[in-house]
Amino acid sequence: MSVLVVGTVAFDSVETPTESRDEALGGSAVYFAAAARHLGPVRLVGVVGEDFDRGLLEDLEAGGVELDGLEVVPGETFRWAGRYLDDMNQRETLSTCLGVFEHFEPKVPEEWRGTPFVFLANGAPPIQAQVLDQMTDPVFTLLDTMDLWIDNMPDELRGVIGRVDGIVVNDEEARALTGENSIVNAARAIQGMGPEVVVVKRGEHGALFAVGSELGAVPAFPTGEVVDPTGAGDSFAGGLMGALAQAGNAGADAVRRGVVDGTLLASFTVEGFSTEGLGRVESDLESRRAAFRRFASLG
Amino acid sequence: MSVLVVGTVAFDSVETPTESRDEALGGSAVYFAAAARHLGPVRLVGVVGEDFDRGLLEDLEAGGVELDGLEVVPGETFRWAGRYLDDMNQRETLSTCLGVFEHFEPKVPEEWRGTPFVFLANGAPPIQAQVLDQMTDPVFTLLDTMDLWIDNMPDELRGVIGRVDGIVVNDEEARALTGENSIVNAARAIQGMGPEVVVVKRGEHGALFAVGSELGAVPAFPTGEVVDPTGAGDSFAGGLMGALAQAGNAGADAVRRGVVDGTLLASFTVEGFSTEGLGRVESDLESRRAAFRRFASLG
Repeated sequence: MSVLVVGTVAFDSVETPTESRDEALGGSAVYFAAAARHLGPVRLVGVVGEDFDRGLLEDLEAGGVELDGLEVVPGETFRWAGRYLDDMNQRETLSTCLGVFEHFEPKVPEEWRGTPFVFLANGAPPIQAQVLDQMTDPVFTLLDTMDLWIDNMPDELRGVIGRVDGIVVNDEEARALTGENSIVNAARAIQGMGPEVVVVKRGEHGALFAVGSELGAVPAFPTGEVVDPTGAGDSFAGGLMGALAQAGNAGADAVRRGVVDGTLLASFTVEGFSTEGLGRVESDLESRRAAFRRFASLG
Repeated sequence: MSVLVVGTVAFDSVETPTESRDEALGGSAVYFAAAARHLGPVRLVGVVGEDFDRGLLEDLEAGGVELDGLEVVPGETFRWAGRYLDDMNQRETLSTCLGVFEHFEPKVPEEWRGTPFVFLANGAPPIQAQVLDQMTDPVFTLLDTMDLWIDNMPDELRGVIGRVDGIVVNDEEARALTGENSIVNAARAIQGMGPEVVVVKRGEHGALFAVGSELGAVPAFPTGEVVDPTGAGDSFAGGLMGALAQAGNAGADAVRRGVVDGTLLASFTVEGFSTEGLGRVESDLESRRAAFRRFASLG
């Protein structure tokens, strides 16, 4: 089954303690699609400015990502610049220029409105709601969000959380959303807001998930060297949704396997700048999967 | 095979946000033994004052813990008092009265010196070294330590770390010992100091371990309600060592199963004050093991 993603297509400028890249291809929809495409067909809805070279998306398109939902409008493409500190777990944003994304009103092409799996990448809750309004009876909708919306648009965010089937947040966001300190309790409290499926990302500690009454946990892949963490969260979501679309459902078993695939795809992303690390997925995914199963086995 | 533990036998006074207990049975050797005894025979080396009622250890003794190594000397038994804050993940020590433990010089009974599995609970590194001096060719020795010794006796601690086969620390201690931010890198760096086996406890995020070149991770048990976290770390070590003694070795497979058993036994401990939670092990261990395997399965 197909997956539809609505999010940013961007230029990222990234500094790490040892290296930097200027205006490399990035954005939530790009990372999501670059990961999910390894598991099945992907449809991308987003916007870029006239300064965007469509050739940058050639690899994605060749890899099975449909781009009929990518608008090109006058103005500048979304740009983000950030810097990672020593341990790569902390980052500071240097600048965010929304450009054409500021007035983005996502339009899902008519023939895509029945897409069964829908990912709403991080964005303003009212825009996320607009996407849901356009979809026809999807099998599973997944929402991402961030502290900005939790703090500044709590009511609008609660509204859209109440309409989706699943949510993916990190541990701090889960605590901020619920006021619960324990991750398990926070996941349960978010389920109480509506979503049947809650996935909490914990960085180097892996992910915990709740599906109905069932709980599960998957460790992080023990990556040797992190080159650039940008896009790890969206790649995780891409692996998760790709696996769910393959399964055709979002039951506990499918989510469990999806969290594993999300973990593996994110591990490729952080090993390079931009989407470079994901270029090694095809040749290495199966061996990494086997290594991970051994790593996380209970013996 | 038998396990020998050297550590404290103590009176703990504990306050949590909802309840408190005065002078309940505690101490590292007690928690360790109360957990490990469910997996095999345990020998306890420690010291108490003349104020200690030996009847408090009746259950342990009936459960297979040999107490011939418990000295009774004039003076007061070790006392610790502490308070847990809201989320139970943080605690403050209100008082520590070493009593007879201050001048404790562990004497391993002659007939116990060949015990194959040896746990050195947290304590001053020179005392831990004295225990090693008395043992005859053990199969596997495991060390616990804390920030106090990392900060104040770094050379002595390095000396004893260089002599043991394994070490169990929490994530902050692993970082403090090595200066590494990544837990995987910290575990590798500690292996470089000598121990073949390194287990890093991460609280609600579970545990990561390294055995030779192999790495593994086990999540925490998703406990519903934490009544009192005191003793969780020593119970974890007890489950781990009990499982290794059952296996008769400390290879990667045995450590993996040991970390699971440590996780499960610690989950019982936190569900009650003192060693009360461990009283439910016999009837509930197998069902908890099955639930945990499902929780941590990769599908």
